[in-house]
Amino acid sequence: MITRMSTLFLRTLRDDPADAEVPSHKLLVRAGYVRRTAPGVYSWLPLGLRVFRHVEQIVREEMDAMGAQEILLPALLPRDPYEATNRWTEYGPNLFRLKDRKGAEMLLGPTHEEIFTQLVKGEYSSYKDLPVILYQVQTKYRDEERPRAGILRGREFVMKDSYSFDLDDAGLQASYDKHRAAYQRIFDRLGVDYVIVKATAGAMGGSRSEEFLAVCEVGEDTFVRSTESDYAANVEAVTTTVPDALPFDGLPAAVVHETGDTPTIDTLVDWANASLPPRGGNTAYTAADTLKNVMVKIRKPGGDWEITAVGVPGDREVDFKRLEASVEPAEVELLDDADFAANPALVKGYIGPKGVQGAEFTYLVDPRVVDGTSWITGADVKGKHYVDLVVGRDFTPDGVIEAASVRDGDPSPDGNGVLTSAKGIEIGHIFQLGRKYADAFGLDVLGENGKPVRVTMGSYGLGVSRMVAVLAEQMHDDKGLRWPREVAPFDVHLVIANKDEAAVAGASELADALDAAGLSVLLDDRKASPGVKFKDSELLGMPVVVVVGRGWANGTVEIRDRFTGESVEAPVDGATDAVIAAVRG
Amino acid sequence: MITRMSTLFLRTLRDDPADAEVPSHKLLVRAGYVRRTAPGVYSWLPLGLRVFRHVEQIVREEMDAMGAQEILLPALLPRDPYEATNRWTEYGPNLFRLKDRKGAEMLLGPTHEEIFTQLVKGEYSSYKDLPVILYQVQTKYRDEERPRAGILRGREFVMKDSYSFDLDDAGLQASYDKHRAAYQRIFDRLGVDYVIVKATAGAMGGSRSEEFLAVCEVGEDTFVRSTESDYAANVEAVTTTVPDALPFDGLPAAVVHETGDTPTIDTLVDWANASLPPRGGNTAYTAADTLKNVMVKIRKPGGDWEITAVGVPGDREVDFKRLEASVEPAEVELLDDADFAANPALVKGYIGPKGVQGAEFTYLVDPRVVDGTSWITGADVKGKHYVDLVVGRDFTPDGVIEAASVRDGDPSPDGNGVLTSAKGIEIGHIFQLGRKYADAFGLDVLGENGKPVRVTMGSYGLGVSRMVAVLAEQMHDDKGLRWPREVAPFDVHLVIANKDEAAVAGASELADALDAAGLSVLLDDRKASPGVKFKDSELLGMPVVVVVGRGWANGTVEIRDRFTGESVEAPVDGATDAVIAAVRG
Repeated sequence: MITRMSTLFLRTLRDDPADAEVPSHKLLVRAGYVRRTAPGVYSWLPLGLRVFRHVEQIVREEMDAMGAQEILLPALLPRDPYEATNRWTEYGPNLFRLKDRKGAEMLLGPTHEEIFTQLVKGEYSSYKDLPVILYQVQTKYRDEERPRAGILRGREFVMKDSYSFDLDDAGLQASYDKHRAAYQRIFDRLGVDYVIVKATAGAMGGSRSEEFLAVCEVGEDTFVRSTESDYAANVEAVTTTVPDALPFDGLPAAVVHETGDTPTIDTLVDWANASLPPRGGNTAYTAADTLKNVMVKIRKPGGDWEITAVGVPGDREVDFKRLEASVEPAEVELLDDADFAANPALVKGYIGPKGVQGAEFTYLVDPRVVDGTSWITGADVKGKHYVDLVVGRDFTPDGVIEAASVRDGDPSPDGNGVLTSAKGIEIGHIFQLGRKYADAFGLDVLGENGKPVRVTMGSYGLGVSRMVAVLAEQMHDDKGLRWPREVAPFDVHLVIANKDEAAVAGASELADALDAAGLSVLLDDRKASPGVKFKDSELLGMPVVVVVGRGWANGTVEIRDRFTGESVEAPVDGATDAVIAAVRG
Repeated sequence: MITRMSTLFLRTLRDDPADAEVPSHKLLVRAGYVRRTAPGVYSWLPLGLRVFRHVEQIVREEMDAMGAQEILLPALLPRDPYEATNRWTEYGPNLFRLKDRKGAEMLLGPTHEEIFTQLVKGEYSSYKDLPVILYQVQTKYRDEERPRAGILRGREFVMKDSYSFDLDDAGLQASYDKHRAAYQRIFDRLGVDYVIVKATAGAMGGSRSEEFLAVCEVGEDTFVRSTESDYAANVEAVTTTVPDALPFDGLPAAVVHETGDTPTIDTLVDWANASLPPRGGNTAYTAADTLKNVMVKIRKPGGDWEITAVGVPGDREVDFKRLEASVEPAEVELLDDADFAANPALVKGYIGPKGVQGAEFTYLVDPRVVDGTSWITGADVKGKHYVDLVVGRDFTPDGVIEAASVRDGDPSPDGNGVLTSAKGIEIGHIFQLGRKYADAFGLDVLGENGKPVRVTMGSYGLGVSRMVAVLAEQMHDDKGLRWPREVAPFDVHLVIANKDEAAVAGASELADALDAAGLSVLLDDRKASPGVKFKDSELLGMPVVVVVGRGWANGTVEIRDRFTGESVEAPVDGATDAVIAAVRG
């Protein structure tokens, strides 16, 4: 196939769009791949659509290869099934809701667990029917609060979503593993730099879950990975390495000190260094010697708000996302002024374990707060703190909670190396849902023994439109886009940079020969200067650029590799073969 | 590709779905091609999706071949552009409207003239950029009052819509002709029985327009065609053959008669036959001798309601759809009781031309009501009618209007043969929009002379998802679906109807050989009786069914043609070639 730029619906832009912050967004707009139609809603122009279709094709091939069956559900969905799972409400303002002409409430599907579950329930009834994996490549809708970065986080986007239906946990595990392997094949074929991180399940419910994150500075997801193993996890999913408990023997007794106006960790540490005898080793006191108690309230679904204190070493913050993930599906909020006013036992800035537990609130601590550790912490009276308050001797927490911030240098949970953090973009997410949706819709099949078996499910998402932005983000350079061959809009960008009639005719013949060899060719036959054409070829990013230019008179064409920037002169006679070789690499 | 029915996500149904009335709907559901998700909203199961994709592919190939460029716009659209063309309002309840989390009004696109116009305005600025034709294959939304017949008229459906942009009328005509030819190629490849009918433009605006109708009893569109030429038209677009005017010489004078209680045409004709002297030739008076005057009110956009009488021969009705098409974009309604009460000059049941014009209302007539014709018609007094009221002598109409019903036997407007009516399903619609949308958005390009040129547009729709139903509707028989090879889910349905191990192995080998030859094979490897399998093969409708059955022992397989019902025995040895020959036909 030969596409001529003289008639292609494409205008490249010199300037970055005003609303673009990340490189992929700037470049995809400047190169005429996408255009904004509404906030977070984009149109695909010819070149962008070709990349998109190529990504879609790779996804489809690998899904088919793993035995998944493609179907296609509507995007416009009835409210009822999403009411049955409570997601009509849980999705909050992220869900696009509408009413039809008869007043029936509908929604634009953000993900389709409900509909797939109902569909399988409608068709299948016997254990012999399972397992089955169904998928679709479909347009999804989420009313993001801050749609950003062009197609990286849009409100209308295309996902591959698939769903597995199995009789038992082993079956689910097998379906999950199949997906995991298929995703690896897909991302490997696409050439994405990615990590697989342990993730929390969030609103999807279910147990095991992993995210595929494209490693990318502009990513919104922070993850950590080990310096010395392939351990990687979402910050929410990191588990703290628990130190051994210490013996109580010889520990000084807890003493309440007048600490003055010391409501913050910083002021408390300053007081300690000024007022307490030096510690063994003559090191200064630090925030790590203090125990910070953050007051929150937690509400389980259908329950009441319950006040809880979270105790973490004073050198760490409470990471609210980690806290939320730990209490999910319960909600959690910080105590507000009214809560403090209603609970005078909680003395802001001076709260300690004894006051919390004395007032019969729950006291949860970071896993590092083990028996035998000594802390400087609040004495529940304004201007007073405990020194040498020992866990397991002076108080016993009601439990532990993963809520403290994770830091570079923390030990890796797998025992190998330490953690470093990086940013990533979620490109895939695989979930073991278990029976949450099957329970909601009563999805049973008749078992081998004649008794009904509740089906167990998995749910697997992969961002197809987002992948176009991810590839642009990871592979671009300062001159423009760069596409790997499998997804590039065209295999070859053939630039006519010589007005000589014979050169123009020769370029046309070369394009025909490449076309005949099964390559797709973008032919720059415009009346523009070589300089403009070269700049556009760099911006557009086909993997191989062929220039019919000055060398033509000497019987050569130039073959440029867009990734390496290397360029070779090839004799006109063997040019077709040389270009084919360059493309097939 | 080999797909095994033992694992295919497919359950055929014995009974018709309760809500299905038309054969294609019944069969597509029974054969497990589609499932209903909400009223007018359907899911595509594996077999249906394969047909759908094949149709899409043919459409795409022919659009590409004509030089159209594919892009993809969002379905979720902002209100503003549709406000600029007034379609936000004009679409009425057919438009799905919604608000996003910030309260911004949005819609689900029913068609995309506005967005394409804006897009081209954003990219192009010179006469050198044109012409251009852009298309998309995209999901559309219309909140139909009565979604019906499954995917034949859904609320979420897939269309190919394209838009042409030209500098002048000749360019638009060329783009239109290209589409017309491409549509013919598409429908010919699909094997659809269709007609091209002249159509009115409706709410799209613009001048020339033709519809492609699949000839189909269950269609909602009535069209007429000539018995002796290829003339065909929507009933709304039929023009009446105007008879010659007659001389006034020798016509009797108009006389007012007491006709008693004769408010209807039937009672008036009875009176005439009982009371008037016999006509020349001694034939009875008929409704055709009377002039019926129907009172309506018409409102042009932005104007007031104006009362108008429509005079048609008494043997015809006023066809409201034809009337609406004639006055479009004005609205039209019948006068109601309040209107009559406010206008006592209009004597219901006895209204005549003189009363209408005497009260200074507009009087429009059917084109057959030519000068020199004599009529029995109202005298504007209760119980009185004119006889021999002559057009052009006794009154002069204010104009003619196409509003009378069209009947089988009416002369074909092209002068060849007479019209017969039939039912059709709209599968394509091509419009010359002209400058309506370019005007709304100020779409100009700089002309060759340096002055701005307003662009002229065409808009072209083709129903992709609907086509699946149309093919099912036109090609099914009483046993089930029948698919032409280019769109069939699989080329071959290979039925194992012999439990013998060698037969099963042989069938598997045959499937492999067909797969290797590039055919797609649906292999019925289920543990079911041959009878069940044969029935399903008829219901599912692959064009070629191969049975490995009893004949296996004698070294033969059976090859059935699903369209003709014919069946041949082929020796196992040459079975692969015989099946390939049968498929390639």
